Amino acid sequence: MSELIKVVLSEEELPRQWYNLVADLPHPVPPPVDMQGQPIGPDALAPVFPMNLIEQEVSTARWIDIPEEVLGILKIWRPTPLYRARRLEEYLGTPAKIFFKHEGVSPPGSHKPNTAVPQAYFNKVFGIKRLTTETGAGQWGSALAFACNLIGIECKVFMVRISFDQKPFRKMMMQAWGANCVASPSTETKVGRSILDDDPNTPGSLGIAISEAIEQAVQDDQTRYSLGSVLNHVMLHQTIIGLETKKQMALIGMKPDVVIGCAGGGSNFAGISFPFLCDKIAGSTDVRVIATEPESCPTLTRAPYAYDSGDVAMMTPLLPMYTLGHTFVPPPIHAGGLRYHGMAPLVSQVLREGLIEAVAIHQLECYEAAIAFAHTEGFLSAPETAHAIAQTIREAKRAKEEGKERVILMNWSGHGLMDLTGYQAYFEGKLHDYSLPDEHLERFLASLKGLPKPPELGG
Amino acid sequence: MSELIKVVLSEEELPRQWYNLVADLPHPVPPPVDMQGQPIGPDALAPVFPMNLIEQEVSTARWIDIPEEVLGILKIWRPTPLYRARRLEEYLGTPAKIFFKHEGVSPPGSHKPNTAVPQAYFNKVFGIKRLTTETGAGQWGSALAFACNLIGIECKVFMVRISFDQKPFRKMMMQAWGANCVASPSTETKVGRSILDDDPNTPGSLGIAISEAIEQAVQDDQTRYSLGSVLNHVMLHQTIIGLETKKQMALIGMKPDVVIGCAGGGSNFAGISFPFLCDKIAGSTDVRVIATEPESCPTLTRAPYAYDSGDVAMMTPLLPMYTLGHTFVPPPIHAGGLRYHGMAPLVSQVLREGLIEAVAIHQLECYEAAIAFAHTEGFLSAPETAHAIAQTIREAKRAKEEGKERVILMNWSGHGLMDLTGYQAYFEGKLHDYSLPDEHLERFLASLKGLPKPPELGG
Repeated sequence: MSELIKVVLSEEELPRQWYNLVADLPHPVPPPVDMQGQPIGPDALAPVFPMNLIEQEVSTARWIDIPEEVLGILKIWRPTPLYRARRLEEYLGTPAKIFFKHEGVSPPGSHKPNTAVPQAYFNKVFGIKRLTTETGAGQWGSALAFACNLIGIECKVFMVRISFDQKPFRKMMMQAWGANCVASPSTETKVGRSILDDDPNTPGSLGIAISEAIEQAVQDDQTRYSLGSVLNHVMLHQTIIGLETKKQMALIGMKPDVVIGCAGGGSNFAGISFPFLCDKIAGSTDVRVIATEPESCPTLTRAPYAYDSGDVAMMTPLLPMYTLGHTFVPPPIHAGGLRYHGMAPLVSQVLREGLIEAVAIHQLECYEAAIAFAHTEGFLSAPETAHAIAQTIREAKRAKEEGKERVILMNWSGHGLMDLTGYQAYFEGKLHDYSLPDEHLERFLASLKGLPKPPELGG
Repeated sequence: MSELIKVVLSEEELPRQWYNLVADLPHPVPPPVDMQGQPIGPDALAPVFPMNLIEQEVSTARWIDIPEEVLGILKIWRPTPLYRARRLEEYLGTPAKIFFKHEGVSPPGSHKPNTAVPQAYFNKVFGIKRLTTETGAGQWGSALAFACNLIGIECKVFMVRISFDQKPFRKMMMQAWGANCVASPSTETKVGRSILDDDPNTPGSLGIAISEAIEQAVQDDQTRYSLGSVLNHVMLHQTIIGLETKKQMALIGMKPDVVIGCAGGGSNFAGISFPFLCDKIAGSTDVRVIATEPESCPTLTRAPYAYDSGDVAMMTPLLPMYTLGHTFVPPPIHAGGLRYHGMAPLVSQVLREGLIEAVAIHQLECYEAAIAFAHTEGFLSAPETAHAIAQTIREAKRAKEEGKERVILMNWSGHGLMDLTGYQAYFEGKLHDYSLPDEHLERFLASLKGLPKPPELGG
């Protein structure tokens, strides 16, 4: 009992401000542009997002206050505990000290509500009555359903049809929180009807669902659209993870030598790492920060930095990011949250700046790591989170080889209780590793041809 | 932010001893007996349970130390937070202060591992290499799988075949924690083979699964059986819930006027309430303590106090308890954990003593309550837990009618993320209320004929 395994904070210690990395970046992020390469101003986004969130999106202020009503809901599960993974350390025989931040304690089970709640709040304050969004496996849709329910606005979720039919549990969660969840493509939008006319049996796609959600948002002045990752204000809201972690590590006199997060759109990675990057930019630490992604969706490790659209139908402005091309079709790996073709512009920028590293990992190694974690630390991880665990284990083994007492910090972004079919497929030997062949990558990247190019770093 | 919604304790504040209500009962509980009414001694239980747990089962010591290794694993999710349900209070417009103890934060998602971990530990210390158990929907099986995995012994779970086939997610959880989970009836036991010979398509039953688990346990000296409720040592291990809660309420200067828990076998109810009953017996509080059960399985509210077997095949000794008869077949309500025919002897005794009240509630009211809870407090409850929420809402409304600022404490025994089909059935209008007709009750109670009778209170 003398050895603590978790550091808990009281509600009074909840951070009152989000940290905006934009204020401290060595070079500015190129602006979003239109197809002609002209910067998109805030007004152009107004039909899609409320102006108070657009202001956050373009803000250069270092600290932004968290409203009291948002804090009141975040308190339901925050501050989240910081764990020392002593049993995993022992199992690995490593001299490293492994810490993980447990974001799975939120009602929807992941870090996603950290941004869903403020997004619902700022929309409500702006007079918006309803949010639309898309969801694949349902992680984001259930977080937004939860947030809208507690904030008190309506929520409409377009869920990719194949997930709607084959993975009904997240849909039931959304319904339990009062959201209206429909299979996409639906007959409720022009784009949906057009696609159903062409192919009534289409399984749908995230790109189609985004198009439907945006179409419904822009046609009604009391409706707006909500995105669960990629954008600056989403990264901002997630920094509460790293800000809490800094307090918790300070309480036990620790500082991380390595910070690890998995990266799909980039939000949980940004959440854990940006407050530490702040110190790295200031020169007060040389912490290594590592983003991990699937080998089958190697955005940070193999894709070019380019202007690209956030969706297949190119309804969004062009964003500067590492991207596999908006026509990218990922292979069916189980970590649905890591299958996005692009990467948050802010995460892309810190990789460009050399402030972080990126690593791609095969899914079998990730499942193996998640099983080792479950058998030692007890918690069943989401398949996305497993990518962070796998890298943590690699670093812990390296510390053992080098005989170093390194402090490794990982963001444990969510639990896997809704993703158990992936574990079953793993145990049954039905999962395989998949590397994206160069010729396929080239084909996807062809969709970037003719688009404007972002300037060189600092250019 | 000035109003706290949860009280968290650090690991140093984890209770170091369990509380044994037996030490303080006004009258002793009648002993377990055989079919002739002769008391069963500890030795008779030795083929089924290890002697160190049998010693706890018959102990009259008030406090029993929690071993360090057990504390080390409980620390993974304990102490659990105590919440003030301010949003639910506001929604109900009640002057009552509602608190709930959040037992859903454990890796398997309920209070069950509070006893699974010490049971696995005491078996290991006794030299046992493998535990067998039965499970219906899988809540208990997954808790024991988790516990055995972390303690380091094998776990074999006989899961009722219809659940094994229709509700595969808990089975996958057990497999992820390394347990061997088989459909019951299986071909691995005499009783299983015999039943399959008669009916190869049988859906199985909890009674059959218990018989298989006990058969495998008694035939091998390194194997024992584990039960997730009913027995004294299970109630003992669960008292950590109430002991933590007392500390948490003391920190904010509160004492409950009403304590509420749902009751199937009785363990989560005992866990939250026994430490408060200690004070009630001593005369230092007149707290009302309420056990809630389904109208369709009205053990405490309509059944007689009798000697009865714990299982259909009558393989267990006869226990003194409120019982619907061991042949009881519950209707298919969704709260699988509340469908047991009997009730823990200790919980039965405190009802006999007039120390607690019992209330039966229909399932539609429970789902309605769980939805109100999810829409205000955010968390999705297990259907069992919904029975405690429904009574809490009744009490909060009563406090409003009477204009009383009562303090109501509820045990929130587990989350409902693995039970979402029940919510869906509720939303689709497919759930109905069911009251056990008198003539059906009489028929089940006929199975008690010819069994020994327990003595009158204090007799």
